[in-house]
Amino acid sequence: MKLAIYGYGNLGRGVELAAGQNEDVELTGIFTRRDPSGVKTLCGTPVYKASDVKLFRDKIDVLIICGGSATDLPGMTPGLAGDFNVVDSFDTHARIPEHFDAVDVSAKKSGKTALISAGWDPGMFSLARLYSSAILPEGRDYTFWGKGVSQGHSDAIRRIKGVEDARQYTVPVESSLEAVRSGQMPDLTTRQKHTRLCYVVAKDGADRARIEKEIKEMPNYFSDYDTTVNFITKEELARDHSGLPHGGFVIRTGKTGANRENTHTVEYSLSLDSNPEFTASALVAFARAVCRMNARGDVGCKTVFDVMPKDLSPLSDAELRRTML
Amino acid sequence: MKLAIYGYGNLGRGVELAAGQNEDVELTGIFTRRDPSGVKTLCGTPVYKASDVKLFRDKIDVLIICGGSATDLPGMTPGLAGDFNVVDSFDTHARIPEHFDAVDVSAKKSGKTALISAGWDPGMFSLARLYSSAILPEGRDYTFWGKGVSQGHSDAIRRIKGVEDARQYTVPVESSLEAVRSGQMPDLTTRQKHTRLCYVVAKDGADRARIEKEIKEMPNYFSDYDTTVNFITKEELARDHSGLPHGGFVIRTGKTGANRENTHTVEYSLSLDSNPEFTASALVAFARAVCRMNARGDVGCKTVFDVMPKDLSPLSDAELRRTML
Repeated sequence: MKLAIYGYGNLGRGVELAAGQNEDVELTGIFTRRDPSGVKTLCGTPVYKASDVKLFRDKIDVLIICGGSATDLPGMTPGLAGDFNVVDSFDTHARIPEHFDAVDVSAKKSGKTALISAGWDPGMFSLARLYSSAILPEGRDYTFWGKGVSQGHSDAIRRIKGVEDARQYTVPVESSLEAVRSGQMPDLTTRQKHTRLCYVVAKDGADRARIEKEIKEMPNYFSDYDTTVNFITKEELARDHSGLPHGGFVIRTGKTGANRENTHTVEYSLSLDSNPEFTASALVAFARAVCRMNARGDVGCKTVFDVMPKDLSPLSDAELRRTML
Repeated sequence: MKLAIYGYGNLGRGVELAAGQNEDVELTGIFTRRDPSGVKTLCGTPVYKASDVKLFRDKIDVLIICGGSATDLPGMTPGLAGDFNVVDSFDTHARIPEHFDAVDVSAKKSGKTALISAGWDPGMFSLARLYSSAILPEGRDYTFWGKGVSQGHSDAIRRIKGVEDARQYTVPVESSLEAVRSGQMPDLTTRQKHTRLCYVVAKDGADRARIEKEIKEMPNYFSDYDTTVNFITKEELARDHSGLPHGGFVIRTGKTGANRENTHTVEYSLSLDSNPEFTASALVAFARAVCRMNARGDVGCKTVFDVMPKDLSPLSDAELRRTML
């Protein structure tokens, strides 16, 4: 299976590494909007100009698009699906329906297969929600994120006057997790589900009290949460907070029985040292499925809900039944 | 979707209840090898003789076969797949390949769709193993069962002389669970993974020391485990141990990164008040998928690995993308 990477940031680098962990994957190249001569890759993969990608139409089975959801993917994925089988990790949940429709039109026209919103949320967490709600229709599910770094929230802090750098962790509230697992099906407010933990490097002479107040009162990002702000040095930030860990929990509890007397708890959780590397690993597995689906003539826009699980694995159907069923 | 139940034990009763929790399901009837006039159903579903099932060929979309894996299903499922779309919960892992082959021949000949080995293990746990190993190819997975009642082990104790009744719980070893979650990828012996906890009602005058010794030394069932035997009264057994709870954990840890420096932990766990009712709920969801697959002409033997997740849900593709992705 010949894969290529379109966009070479954290996620693209993760795909390059993940490709090397899968024996059936060959990496054709990396396409970037930067000057290729200035890009040093992790594994020596050749680098090409993004604008040349169409020249590689016949040399790529699936193109993995590693752009941002806010401004890159809404244009990129429908555009590239006109020439390639593609996978993206579009993660703006509210805009998935319109992204799906735009990609579907393009992929159906070109006879390609385009899978959007792969990764862990959307992605594996979505699958956990679907499977457990299909099995337990009378129930309720909850998604908690963290402990992990939210890049959006870290960026929001960095935009405050007097802040040199910052890192924000989203942290699930343990007592709420326990209440959910017990089958009580509690109503939880935003504040009851997660807390926000901030590590901030202030510029010399900056007013720390004002920075802390601005963070805690920031609408949408922090005002609905219990937020803790810790000021640390640039060195401490680099030493203790340079990774991009993340993870979370999808928990569904449901009732069965003549009098709904039996409670069942289904929990799917992730603890990830590197959010982009895990997401990239998922993109490569879903690219394998896209390649097979297109070979079967299954074209248009797809999501993780449309993928037969066996298509994610390099093993044959018989091997899967023998070793994993 | 018209379902019917073939076999009316704990699992069949669970399917009858689960059918009532799904608005798109209509229950045609229950087929039993007993005299139908002597069978009282939980929800007033009509009862018919198993030998009459073929008369209902056109009145059943999917027949859910609720027999035992040891002696019932190896004959029943291939036989019934000659006339019906079917789902079973065949759970003898080592014999799945031959069961698959026998069912596949029958279902392909009749143009029916037959899904075997649905439930939680095999079933949801199998899916957890497949998804996580496809995403994290350099890793290792572990399956732990419990805390829950093992009917096979309970039966084995009941066959010992002087035992009136017994209940056996399989219990995962917490310290091993923690070692696995940490990403150490330990080698674990049988003894290190699970302990066995037995509640035994001895007959009047029976030699309890001998019973305890016979349990602990029983090959295959107990001799490889740390086993605890508690003698209790018939009343205590009825009061405290009449349920059939079960559950367990599938945990995969894997490494990514240029130097495999990042560890990821994927965990899927179930805590079930009623093992047969949860299994039954899964069978109904997979019956929905079987119905749709057959309508699309996708015939032959299938497993959970062949099912597109969306086919398990009564919601439309667009609703699923909008509400769960």
